[in-house]
Amino acid sequence: MTDAANGIEPALLHPIGVIRSTIGTRAQAPRQGSEGAPDAWLEVGAAVARGLHGIAVGEDILVITWLHQGRRETLEVHPRGDTTRPLAGVFATRSPDRPNPLGLHRVTVRQIDGNRLRIGPIEAIDGTPVVDIKPVLTDAER
Amino acid sequence: MTDAANGIEPALLHPIGVIRSTIGTRAQAPRQGSEGAPDAWLEVGAAVARGLHGIAVGEDILVITWLHQGRRETLEVHPRGDTTRPLAGVFATRSPDRPNPLGLHRVTVRQIDGNRLRIGPIEAIDGTPVVDIKPVLTDAER
Repeated sequence: MTDAANGIEPALLHPIGVIRSTIGTRAQAPRQGSEGAPDAWLEVGAAVARGLHGIAVGEDILVITWLHQGRRETLEVHPRGDTTRPLAGVFATRSPDRPNPLGLHRVTVRQIDGNRLRIGPIEAIDGTPVVDIKPVLTDAER
Repeated sequence: MTDAANGIEPALLHPIGVIRSTIGTRAQAPRQGSEGAPDAWLEVGAAVARGLHGIAVGEDILVITWLHQGRRETLEVHPRGDTTRPLAGVFATRSPDRPNPLGLHRVTVRQIDGNRLRIGPIEAIDGTPVVDIKPVLTDAER
């Protein structure tokens, strides 16, 4: 069997910012932003803050986080932690436990204050590193 | 000014697979999958192939790539490379040049052959590392 991923060099993610949230622990976090998550601050590092130019209040954006408490050795989970459901591969779920624990969050920009964005709703816990921000594409573009 | 991203440790991305495409260079690649991109193979490493369990032919999935030819020092670009358009921050664009050059691709699963998925359309070039795969959420979930 081909082992495609062997021999490809690992890449180093440098966080561009951090989530400041009232959610302190993973146990307190809803499973998705739409499930009662609060708004939070996304504090962007001064060195990359120029990259925010063009983001406007009221828009939806995609925030990519590094779910630093994710268990990277996990390959199968019971969806939504429900043990009555059969195991599924992590790539067929949004589990934070996965080989590269990237979180993908579609949020609305509520406010912009210098290099801080008020965004939400978002289920990421306080201190979660942010690694990228992207615009939402229209259906025609995606 | 807060420098939020200082002091957060970098994270190491281990590729889970690779794109095998007929697109050989960045100059040949369309800007989005919807703009005439071909289908491609996503070869998943044997060590993580169990994570694919539950992905089915005909579904749309999100593929997250590491755009290894991206220029990480770029913070502003002319959208779509059009120099008649004003500079925008990279976080307001889908430019592959950005501090963490992650690519986000919504694709359809055409075929599954062991640990290889035929997917498309996708604009990533041959040899692009894949770092995560996620299901598309319904509007109610996101």
